Amino acid sequence: MKSSRAAAPAAAPLAVVILAAGAGTRMKSRLPKVLHPLAGWPMVRHVIENASALRPAPRLVGVVAPGAEKVAAAFAPHAVVVQDKPLGTGHAARAALPALAGHRGPVLVMFGDAPLITTATLRRLVFAFAHTGASVGVLGFMAADPEPYGRLILSDGELEKIVESRDASFAERQVRLCNSGVMCISGALLPELLGAIGKRNAKREYYLTDIVAIARAAGHRTIAVTGEEAEFRGINSRAELAAAERALQQRLRRAALDAGVGMQDPETVWLAADTRLAPDVSIGPCVRFGPGVSVGAGSEIKAFCDIEGARIGRDTIIGPFARIRPGSVVADRVHIGNFVELKATRMGRAAKANHLAYLGDSVIGEASNIGAGTIAVNYDGYGKHRTIIGRDAFVGSNSSLVAPVRIGNGANVTAGSVITEDVPAGALAFGRARQVTKKGRASELRARLKARAGK
Amino acid sequence: MKSSRAAAPAAAPLAVVILAAGAGTRMKSRLPKVLHPLAGWPMVRHVIENASALRPAPRLVGVVAPGAEKVAAAFAPHAVVVQDKPLGTGHAARAALPALAGHRGPVLVMFGDAPLITTATLRRLVFAFAHTGASVGVLGFMAADPEPYGRLILSDGELEKIVESRDASFAERQVRLCNSGVMCISGALLPELLGAIGKRNAKREYYLTDIVAIARAAGHRTIAVTGEEAEFRGINSRAELAAAERALQQRLRRAALDAGVGMQDPETVWLAADTRLAPDVSIGPCVRFGPGVSVGAGSEIKAFCDIEGARIGRDTIIGPFARIRPGSVVADRVHIGNFVELKATRMGRAAKANHLAYLGDSVIGEASNIGAGTIAVNYDGYGKHRTIIGRDAFVGSNSSLVAPVRIGNGANVTAGSVITEDVPAGALAFGRARQVTKKGRASELRARLKARAGK
Amino acid sequence: MKSSRAAAPAAAPLAVVILAAGAGTRMKSRLPKVLHPLAGWPMVRHVIENASALRPAPRLVGVVAPGAEKVAAAFAPHAVVVQDKPLGTGHAARAALPALAGHRGPVLVMFGDAPLITTATLRRLVFAFAHTGASVGVLGFMAADPEPYGRLILSDGELEKIVESRDASFAERQVRLCNSGVMCISGALLPELLGAIGKRNAKREYYLTDIVAIARAAGHRTIAVTGEEAEFRGINSRAELAAAERALQQRLRRAALDAGVGMQDPETVWLAADTRLAPDVSIGPCVRFGPGVSVGAGSEIKAFCDIEGARIGRDTIIGPFARIRPGSVVADRVHIGNFVELKATRMGRAAKANHLAYLGDSVIGEASNIGAGTIAVNYDGYGKHRTIIGRDAFVGSNSSLVAPVRIGNGANVTAGSVITEDVPAGALAFGRARQVTKKGRASELRARLKARAGK
Repeated sequence: MKSSRAAAPAAAPLAVVILAAGAGTRMKSRLPKVLHPLAGWPMVRHVIENASALRPAPRLVGVVAPGAEKVAAAFAPHAVVVQDKPLGTGHAARAALPALAGHRGPVLVMFGDAPLITTATLRRLVFAFAHTGASVGVLGFMAADPEPYGRLILSDGELEKIVESRDASFAERQVRLCNSGVMCISGALLPELLGAIGKRNAKREYYLTDIVAIARAAGHRTIAVTGEEAEFRGINSRAELAAAERALQQRLRRAALDAGVGMQDPETVWLAADTRLAPDVSIGPCVRFGPGVSVGAGSEIKAFCDIEGARIGRDTIIGPFARIRPGSVVADRVHIGNFVELKATRMGRAAKANHLAYLGDSVIGEASNIGAGTIAVNYDGYGKHRTIIGRDAFVGSNSSLVAPVRIGNGANVTAGSVITEDVPAGALAFGRARQVTKKGRASELRARLKARAGK
Repeated sequence: MKSSRAAAPAAAPLAVVILAAGAGTRMKSRLPKVLHPLAGWPMVRHVIENASALRPAPRLVGVVAPGAEKVAAAFAPHAVVVQDKPLGTGHAARAALPALAGHRGPVLVMFGDAPLITTATLRRLVFAFAHTGASVGVLGFMAADPEPYGRLILSDGELEKIVESRDASFAERQVRLCNSGVMCISGALLPELLGAIGKRNAKREYYLTDIVAIARAAGHRTIAVTGEEAEFRGINSRAELAAAERALQQRLRRAALDAGVGMQDPETVWLAADTRLAPDVSIGPCVRFGPGVSVGAGSEIKAFCDIEGARIGRDTIIGPFARIRPGSVVADRVHIGNFVELKATRMGRAAKANHLAYLGDSVIGEASNIGAGTIAVNYDGYGKHRTIIGRDAFVGSNSSLVAPVRIGNGANVTAGSVITEDVPAGALAFGRARQVTKKGRASELRARLKARAGK
Repeated sequence: MKSSRAAAPAAAPLAVVILAAGAGTRMKSRLPKVLHPLAGWPMVRHVIENASALRPAPRLVGVVAPGAEKVAAAFAPHAVVVQDKPLGTGHAARAALPALAGHRGPVLVMFGDAPLITTATLRRLVFAFAHTGASVGVLGFMAADPEPYGRLILSDGELEKIVESRDASFAERQVRLCNSGVMCISGALLPELLGAIGKRNAKREYYLTDIVAIARAAGHRTIAVTGEEAEFRGINSRAELAAAERALQQRLRRAALDAGVGMQDPETVWLAADTRLAPDVSIGPCVRFGPGVSVGAGSEIKAFCDIEGARIGRDTIIGPFARIRPGSVVADRVHIGNFVELKATRMGRAAKANHLAYLGDSVIGEASNIGAGTIAVNYDGYGKHRTIIGRDAFVGSNSSLVAPVRIGNGANVTAGSVITEDVPAGALAFGRARQVTKKGRASELRARLKARAGK
């Protein structure tokens, strides 16, 4: 790969058009299809990121349906154009032309619902396109069952045409090389080629695939580049989305294992596309990573954890049954135990919260210990407030820390206290009633309760 | 299918006999085999429900072993007869005769430990039986490995006989069409045919399969109808039960996906046979549904939830790590967060309980907020009591609501309070001690604790 | 099998050498490879246990790398020798010679990173070795893809030689019988045979496999015994470790099912090698057993539990979402509910802790009830202390039991109490503030909070 990259012609600037205007009715969802989540990202973001990783960074244009503000937002900061009517892929690509004005380098046309295509595969297409001087390049794949796909008909090593399955001759139906839909097209020729696409077909739509025959007829070179079928599965239904999720998870898990991450059962670890796990991180069964998580070397994520938007340090132990929510930063050698929730909370080095606690909008200083059942009372019905705890503090079990509140370095809060005022460094704070014990009175109470229960 | 249903002969009333008297010793369980759970139901209930769905609703009789009260109860409200001794399937069917007195329509004989047979397959058998004027119809399947099964020997399009594997000739052993055990028999002939079954065989048992040869010998028409092998697996061991569970889950998951339910990893969503999920429900990894759950459109069940016997509204968010127990009704736009348990509790529209809480036997009014760590103290050791919270109330964190107790509309309970008396609407309730802070006293306490620990 | 065991020659004492000095760099871990966990044990412990189960119990020697104290510790109480330099398997085996001084019986040479080989397979090798009077016996397997393995070349029913893949002739490459690495060697000949191994090869290492040719050349009998390929997978990477874990889990799950344990989804039950589950235990999805757990008949472990180092009685119900930590002993008919953590705690017969509780270093007497949200405050920052609760006690919800503390038989602790002093039997203890309700004051508070939030 290195040598061929080195041999690449001086890279003309690249543009990418991502078609994302499809309705996706088979998803049966209010959410536009390309926004359905896949490994923690909206589906279309995978396409955007994988295309964006091409070097030099391409100019990128999304084509969206009218009124699809959320889809448009998913393309930010890239340009977005609106395809005013659903008149086919050729029509959609044409909608991008104004956004490509003046661009004469190659234009990669991709689909927002085919998120498994890797940057490496795209790079092979772009490289072959440049290297052969082609005007149109198409990504194809050898299909296990070619029946539903358009076939790529080769001739003398070039791509002669794309034949839809229903229009294929007997001989053409034997061809297993199928059309992925992804194309690389000369930017200089794009307006002309797209303009030549007609809609004389059953659906009265403009098919982008016609561009191959049009380019050939005009004497241009057209090529096919092959990739793995697994990368080209499109997503049209919930079942296909689940299958794509599974395929992507397998990739992510394998990469993590190869990087030295231990997992007792990789099949029950769900990673996000951007999860960053250092070597020697070890992960128990049933751990879900939402987007935006990094975990430092030597840390252990025990079984049954849910972690999202959090930076976790080295040699830290999380779980089992811990939930770390976005905005949390957990330092090195921290312990977060079972039934503990962190939200937008910083845990200092070697701090501990081992049992049944809610820490929200809080800062816990180094080596401080948060007792079982502690609640950072961060919400009063109107605003969220912060709890700031210093170093080496000790917060007794079942305490309620009513924010905004500060607990100083080395302070102690006794178990069961409600803390409503700041506790200075080194102070001892109580906020609980004194115990009163009434000898022999349990049986009387019990008799009363029993009577009330009608027993 | 529609046209053939239309062509069906005027439907004679149907009866169903379900044989459920087997010992199931290979399960190694105190629980009778047919009561072992499968997708949230006792195994035999799947058979009962799938048979009951035949139209017109059939008369249904269960055949159970002596003393099997729990099995009998599982058949309610259907009739149950007792097979006094375990003398084979023919003997078991004979036990049902009194309950079928006067019934002259077709009788479907099924097995309580073969729960995967669909209503559609049963309907095909019943229809073919009626349409061909057969006296005995048998469901068969093409077995991948026919070795262990009895073979259906056809002759001129009719079923000639059923040959047990060990009695089969060389030619018969090549036959892959196998006996599922499910039969449809003329009710008019049933007493006579069953009466003719003998027990001249190695086990000295009455085999229901002999009925085919008996009917043929008496000049009656006997037919075979084929179905998918996957539907006919019987369950005799824990491993087979687990395999059936897996097969059933795959069916249920696929149906949910096709209906527009999103699941990140369908393999770790466990549905009950009666789970009702609206389109655009989205479900994270590791969610278990017990029986009796419905979830409205647009709701999200996050990872690691356990939900049973609950009605959940639209656009509600549950989990992760939530447990909803039977008798709970959760309205629209509710939030139930992590480490929260609901038991027989109603959550009003837009109510929230986001962190570490137990709400039992409670009613939470619209838009009320239940703070982290709140406990509805519903049990006093003898009786269960109710906590009734109005609309727009605010229950501070770590509160204990000692039931029976009422908190009115718009009332506030401060964090850390123990509430033992009703709080009127609009009132502010405290039930906590005032904080006392002793400056500089933490080090003294720590020295004492350290000494006690011998450090 | 019985007859062949009966026919075994008078068993010469057996020795086992386990080579565990490999670096395991492909694991990318600070932890030595053979210590990575597999079904709850360090990998090498499986090898040690499976070899130790051979009868009569063999003398066992581990060969470890210099400075590998943790690996050495894993062999305790067995002998350990240090291989001073990594000069190949022959060199490693030679390091064990001093520890085998005087041993003239068979010596089984195994690898610490091949933990799936069963005792039954080892026994077959040892038996064949003794029965045939061989001097060297090698375990082989028919490989699906033999390419990467050394081949066992047989001749007249004996093992002629082991040929490395790269040195194999065309004919030898067709051989699918491959070398597992496991050997049985005559102890009397071992010093002489090992001494004859040279290092004239590409890597300049001493290969233990050369011993076959050396023994043959000296006129000794050498044999091959075959086993299943699945048992012989070595572990060199995280992915291979995960695959081995999966294989071992499948074995353990199948054995549990066969013993009468019910599992809704065995694929999401993770067992440890030593997990002991009685018949009629039933286990929900997503349950992880760490090492050292036993569960009595009729108990139910619901979904989402994590249990380690605990003895659980009969007819007890655990979970869902329960965590039982080491040192816990749970009696019969106990209920442990959701979001409950037990650590080094004894629960007496029919005791209950059904909701959100932490019980550490505690003893809960028979039939006592621990309310929701109860915390045993066992840690003061320096020492751990015990909470001792008698029989038939009732601890109200959200209580904090500040250890060391005792609560007597039949005592009641009211909900929300902080208990710092012992509660005698039959006493009623309060440790909470009285409720104060201020009518109509919620709106005033809310206005203030709203203003603070800037709303």
